[in-house]
Amino acid sequence: MPTGSLKDRASAIVTARALETGVARIIAASTGNAGVAQAAMANAAGISAVVVVPETAPKGKVAQLVVFGAELLLVKGNYDAAFELALRASAELGWYCRNTAYNPFSAEGKKTVAFEICEQLAAELGPPKSGQGWRAPDRIFVSVGDGNIISGLHKGLKDLHALGWIDRMPKLVGVQSEGSAAVANAFAAGTETITPVTATTIADSISADRPADGVRAVRAARQTEGVIIKVSDQQILDAIVALGRDATIFAEPAASAAYAGLLAQVDAKAVDPEEQVVVLVTGNGLKDVASASRATAEPPHIEPTVEALQQALAVTRGTR
Amino acid sequence: MPTGSLKDRASAIVTARALETGVARIIAASTGNAGVAQAAMANAAGISAVVVVPETAPKGKVAQLVVFGAELLLVKGNYDAAFELALRASAELGWYCRNTAYNPFSAEGKKTVAFEICEQLAAELGPPKSGQGWRAPDRIFVSVGDGNIISGLHKGLKDLHALGWIDRMPKLVGVQSEGSAAVANAFAAGTETITPVTATTIADSISADRPADGVRAVRAARQTEGVIIKVSDQQILDAIVALGRDATIFAEPAASAAYAGLLAQVDAKAVDPEEQVVVLVTGNGLKDVASASRATAEPPHIEPTVEALQQALAVTRGTR
Repeated sequence: MPTGSLKDRASAIVTARALETGVARIIAASTGNAGVAQAAMANAAGISAVVVVPETAPKGKVAQLVVFGAELLLVKGNYDAAFELALRASAELGWYCRNTAYNPFSAEGKKTVAFEICEQLAAELGPPKSGQGWRAPDRIFVSVGDGNIISGLHKGLKDLHALGWIDRMPKLVGVQSEGSAAVANAFAAGTETITPVTATTIADSISADRPADGVRAVRAARQTEGVIIKVSDQQILDAIVALGRDATIFAEPAASAAYAGLLAQVDAKAVDPEEQVVVLVTGNGLKDVASASRATAEPPHIEPTVEALQQALAVTRGTR
Repeated sequence: MPTGSLKDRASAIVTARALETGVARIIAASTGNAGVAQAAMANAAGISAVVVVPETAPKGKVAQLVVFGAELLLVKGNYDAAFELALRASAELGWYCRNTAYNPFSAEGKKTVAFEICEQLAAELGPPKSGQGWRAPDRIFVSVGDGNIISGLHKGLKDLHALGWIDRMPKLVGVQSEGSAAVANAFAAGTETITPVTATTIADSISADRPADGVRAVRAARQTEGVIIKVSDQQILDAIVALGRDATIFAEPAASAAYAGLLAQVDAKAVDPEEQVVVLVTGNGLKDVASASRATAEPPHIEPTVEALQQALAVTRGTR
């Protein structure tokens, strides 16, 4: 993940498609990771990328977009306004629109993670009993915002299954923040009608008022005998620390949410201890160190003496 | 680089050495990247790591240390005080001290980057004329703070040369910030006596008052017919953007300094256009997005209309 998020996969394939069709310019609406990934991939490929973001976008993400050479415009409005503007500009000016869940190649890019999971599991564990193919895990946990990643993952697994490269479908568990749970709500209600919410969550990369791929996300869980669950912001913060210690992986909140989902499902005995489980960590913790600060307690302050160090560590150890 | 900086190499080898000797606990003084890398490697290996940092350390780095499970103590004092404390604790308590440039395995870890450079160049370009070995570039640019990375790089190249795996030594160009230039000063004065400075630079990861590996850094440049040069903070900031656009790599200031050095040497016609040059980018830009913000201009704000977008882009294009 060259820019530190799974969005790199979508942007790589969208960019390859742009090269294939010879478009002059890509336009994308984004609130962050997707835009950064698109700017980087287009820059590497030598294609112009126009990125439109709400003017409230965090300064750090704006800076990365400029560093990667995007023609960046700050839109006076929210993400929906930027999304609409990208669609209109695409229609009127003939540019290639990369908007997530609008451009079908975004999910085509994300589905490549399914290939990688099944290829690597086979390399590590050997092929499955039934033959020489790749190996599917029993269950995959994945964070859900607009629903594009779980949709792409589902499509990739279906492709592999149809080809006979895996012998069964894993159960897909989508994890939403309870403050941004339009897809989980629809799943719980047994419907495919996505009712928009006013999303508020610390996990900004999965904050979505009206998930554009919500229907496909519900189907991904339902068709695989999976589920869409909710976790709280506190569970998401706790999972940043748990994932750091259990797996030495530093995740941004939207990514630790998937691990929070696993921990919750284990507590609820919804996961068999014998199962092979994959947790997709979709964004680097360096994307949001402020949330990591919120997730961790202030360490002890000491005088620079060995005695003070020993005293503090006895206390530290006792509390861990 | 699992934690996003070249320090991961040093910490991996120090941790391997700790496992080999069966030590109970590693202690490290750090102002940031080295501590984070050590915390992560020790956590992955199941060894306790005590990290002592100045209490003025940035909150984001403190949080990463806690996430990766370090026993973290904030020392009332500066980096020198933390460094001394780690040495004393190591001596009195029998812990394994990882302090950079004190522990010889830190440079042993960093030298692995020399292997990787020469192996990959051979894989990409084929073996050199003289035989079947790996391939050395003509020149390598590397940022210099305490001097440990250029020392490790030099040692790795000398190892390869002595073994006959490369047929010549590349010229090593060390790049310091002019606000933290103790090594460059010694090089320019033709001495190996490192006179401490009071370092002030935006490139915090190469800010060093008294470079612990300064002598070896001077020798690395002198013995390879290289040089230690200085660049300004403004050149370092400009190089963040230049590297992002030229190579689609997002670097922290301490890492973009090496590219700033290349640009300056090209301007000065000190580098032949035909040379093969490697620039070592030692830290991810996500480590310090605030500096990236300082490096980039504020993009245009527009109303969400196609007309406003077209107007703004004409202006944007004109100014780039």
